[in-house]
Amino acid sequence: MCPHTGARAGLLHTPHGAVETPVFMPVGTQATVKGLTPDHLSHELDARIILANTYHLYLRPGHETVRKLGGLHGFMNWPRAILTDSGGYQAFSLSSLTRITGEGVLFRSHLNGDKHLFTPASTVNTQIALGSDIMMVLDECLAYPASHGAARVSMERTIRWAQDSFDHLAGLQGHSGGLFPIVQGSMFADLRAECAQRLTSLNADGYAIGGLSVGEPRPLSMEMVEASVPHLPADRPRYVMGVGTPEELPEYVARGVDMMDCVMPSRNARNGCLFTSQGKLIVKHARYKEDPTPIDPACACFTCARFSRAYLRHLFLAGEILYSTLATLHNLHHYLAIMRRIRHAILAGNFPELLKGLRSQPLEAV
Amino acid sequence: MCPHTGARAGLLHTPHGAVETPVFMPVGTQATVKGLTPDHLSHELDARIILANTYHLYLRPGHETVRKLGGLHGFMNWPRAILTDSGGYQAFSLSSLTRITGEGVLFRSHLNGDKHLFTPASTVNTQIALGSDIMMVLDECLAYPASHGAARVSMERTIRWAQDSFDHLAGLQGHSGGLFPIVQGSMFADLRAECAQRLTSLNADGYAIGGLSVGEPRPLSMEMVEASVPHLPADRPRYVMGVGTPEELPEYVARGVDMMDCVMPSRNARNGCLFTSQGKLIVKHARYKEDPTPIDPACACFTCARFSRAYLRHLFLAGEILYSTLATLHNLHHYLAIMRRIRHAILAGNFPELLKGLRSQPLEAV
Repeated sequence: MCPHTGARAGLLHTPHGAVETPVFMPVGTQATVKGLTPDHLSHELDARIILANTYHLYLRPGHETVRKLGGLHGFMNWPRAILTDSGGYQAFSLSSLTRITGEGVLFRSHLNGDKHLFTPASTVNTQIALGSDIMMVLDECLAYPASHGAARVSMERTIRWAQDSFDHLAGLQGHSGGLFPIVQGSMFADLRAECAQRLTSLNADGYAIGGLSVGEPRPLSMEMVEASVPHLPADRPRYVMGVGTPEELPEYVARGVDMMDCVMPSRNARNGCLFTSQGKLIVKHARYKEDPTPIDPACACFTCARFSRAYLRHLFLAGEILYSTLATLHNLHHYLAIMRRIRHAILAGNFPELLKGLRSQPLEAV
Repeated sequence: MCPHTGARAGLLHTPHGAVETPVFMPVGTQATVKGLTPDHLSHELDARIILANTYHLYLRPGHETVRKLGGLHGFMNWPRAILTDSGGYQAFSLSSLTRITGEGVLFRSHLNGDKHLFTPASTVNTQIALGSDIMMVLDECLAYPASHGAARVSMERTIRWAQDSFDHLAGLQGHSGGLFPIVQGSMFADLRAECAQRLTSLNADGYAIGGLSVGEPRPLSMEMVEASVPHLPADRPRYVMGVGTPEELPEYVARGVDMMDCVMPSRNARNGCLFTSQGKLIVKHARYKEDPTPIDPACACFTCARFSRAYLRHLFLAGEILYSTLATLHNLHHYLAIMRRIRHAILAGNFPELLKGLRSQPLEAV
């Protein structure tokens, strides 16, 4: 615990090893972190936990197929922890004809238009088939902005679904993973506080805060986290879903958040945007054509130890696969290194100084 | 030397290390073997030499840029040997408006339509800028079929250009790489023999046989190699350009060939065709949907040690980058393992038995 902020350093125990927190979880949507081998993840990045998307894996190759092949751990040959979302978010954002019924979420596959139904119980079953270490309950993720009335209706449904999910899991045997309920409430502090408070009765292994990073201004996201966190038990991990930029990571940690995930480092990497200690670097810029320096001279990653900006730019412009691998390795290393610095600072008692230093760093291009 | 066939086991010395022959060279067209890191090439495949394409690198990022960044070795962080072609083949096959002039080959870039001229001297200069360990002379690669008359005219030009290339190189200082002339002559044994014979006066470090695998039936390719090899010096490496299938590798070796290259293992990998000891495996087939076995249970590669056919199929169907990496690692390992077995058999004196065994292997799908 940092005595001056809400920052905490902890240890999250999972069936596939302990995870030092605060932690950023690389996203492996389709049972692969795009462009990386599991060896890259473990040997080069020392990632202890990754996220996989239930919606995608439910549709392809199918969770029963994954179960038969040893769960996600066996399927993708990843021996460390895996967190899965419930699939609800993608059922709303990727599918067509999404409709909430009395039972759950009805949607059409973005792959072939087939109809599917996710219920609180079915999404737990699907995540168990995937062999998830940390599962999420089905929740409703409202679009931004929403009215207070709509946000309350949606929050009540999310709480009901969370209860249904826990009731369902209680009737099952032999699964050792955890299940996190999700705090919703759109951008209303009173709803966030109430939702957090009421979910604690589930006595869950951890609590997620969802429905953020949906288009709202960032101060509002922070406010919603601040409204939720004080009502969550201090001895359980807190996970803000789908965030954030490198600059936001310490801000969430300062507000008592232990876990985060985001496609930003990997997706930006593939699109040519690299994070450095001096701000963003747009790799295709002509100024890097003959630049022999690494992406970030201060970086210790696989890519920066071996390759120049000029080479990365060449690979990017030539559409080479290796570009995605090297860029993703760098950006994820950047995120994980920030989280390691944060953890060390919390343990050393100087997190406020680090926070101040990180806040003063340039955000613009190198 | 195999006493019963033309097969030879040798050691090819280059400025970037010795290469055990016979050798198959992975193709790294744009200064990257598609999908692999240099670590994959050296640690997982133990490749000692790769090929890079002068045409592509001349156009993008430009050979002068590569020179400034430490040549190809520095640019792509590959410390072992690199062979470059002359760019002539691609100037004929990839470009539009290709025309042979008194000086060389005039062509338009396939990237932006710009006009460029390759001459015997300029292609040597370009390859020197790239830092090539083994350079090729500019040659004319005729389409198949061609008349005897056209083939002779083309062969005479290729011999003249080879002489020009060697004359040019003799006037330069400080480059330690070798330069190979190229035997041409279309599908006419008399021209192949004459071309090989006349090129030996160059006293080159090695000799290439080009213009094969251009659509002719495979027995004809073998016949052309048989017509050329006896006229080439026994103490210099012989390189058949752009071949072949896994089944053809030992056939070329049996005819006295020491070096080969082909995009087949890497390109087929990306397209979903995997080579195994039991024949080809088409990874998308529904029968592999829940197949927990590796691509080839007899294979010791990175991919087969870690992943199932079911996982590879999933990655392929999902369009995941990791598929290309894992499939390329496997197919190249398959090729390099065949060549290692061939070399060991030659040294152990039982290459004819290996050749017989390889000839009796199934070619069809698993």
